[in-house]
Amino acid sequence: MIRPWKVIRSKPIGDFRIFKLRSDVSVHPDTGEEHDFFVLDSVNWVNIVALTPDRELVMVEQYRHGSGTVELEIPGGMMDAGETDPVVTGVRELREETGYEGNAARRLGQVLTNPAIFSNTCHTVLVENCRLKHGVEFDQAEDLVTRLVPVADIPKLVAEEKIKHSLVVVALYHFDLWQRGIKKIGG
Amino acid sequence: MIRPWKVIRSKPIGDFRIFKLRSDVSVHPDTGEEHDFFVLDSVNWVNIVALTPDRELVMVEQYRHGSGTVELEIPGGMMDAGETDPVVTGVRELREETGYEGNAARRLGQVLTNPAIFSNTCHTVLVENCRLKHGVEFDQAEDLVTRLVPVADIPKLVAEEKIKHSLVVVALYHFDLWQRGIKKIGG
Repeated sequence: MIRPWKVIRSKPIGDFRIFKLRSDVSVHPDTGEEHDFFVLDSVNWVNIVALTPDRELVMVEQYRHGSGTVELEIPGGMMDAGETDPVVTGVRELREETGYEGNAARRLGQVLTNPAIFSNTCHTVLVENCRLKHGVEFDQAEDLVTRLVPVADIPKLVAEEKIKHSLVVVALYHFDLWQRGIKKIGG
Repeated sequence: MIRPWKVIRSKPIGDFRIFKLRSDVSVHPDTGEEHDFFVLDSVNWVNIVALTPDRELVMVEQYRHGSGTVELEIPGGMMDAGETDPVVTGVRELREETGYEGNAARRLGQVLTNPAIFSNTCHTVLVENCRLKHGVEFDQAEDLVTRLVPVADIPKLVAEEKIKHSLVVVALYHFDLWQRGIKKIGG
């Protein structure tokens, strides 16, 4: 039986806009041994599975500064201050990044972004009947192109690693499981 | 058409063991505008889909210091200095974390861990016919329990969010796509 460790000291190291870094000292629950760990804190993130009436997925192509590559992804972003419902973030990010708006927006699933080093969660929001209704409103240094991709092509695009962002692949697996009746929404 | 930006300055901020942090200044390819971005560098990571002759998956339960929770995951770890083949890392980590060894080890897939902020890749290695053959050899501060889980139960465990580590969910989607004949190995 694995039991949680206890954090006995925590020291902030710095604020790097997207994340803050801290150094924790934690104690093993059985042995009492102390170890230190670096942890990254960020607000929660939200990715959006946005479907059109023609069974297409609203995707975006964008340059990513971590990998230095152009990636095919689904829209997404960080929860703004004051946003407590990931659905609100999802609908907002979908509109800002693509101009699309739909209905029946709801939570499809969530994962831990990387529980070894990050404390936050990434939500996936599903939106149906999406249509282009607005102009885009990019954040500073954002630069995206919308791509409509048939839903039927998605598993192959993941399999062929044309879609490479781990959190996008996670969202698409939850979507795949929902389509197959294995994932229940809200469950 | 989205084109890559150009990094014109890069400044190391610190080395935090699992990752190094740097600050880059990059130039937009069309407008010439400059922006700064924080990037996390790490060696590549490897997760292992290890199957037993009885169609079980070799999983591990462990405490995660980022999320502060006990997680059900597949074995995995960082590529050691000198390891250039993720299959070598996968076979080693599987043995160290669980004592299991199998055959036909090969690469199943790869993703970018989080291309917005990380520069590295996470590989998934598939190993078949795994049997318990060795004692475990944990890294410092590692503390794991092995769990054998029927392969047939995996999609439901992902759907119900009993498996929450994003990179584990990614590995299991690639595995699911391979089982369904959609993902070709080496493709």
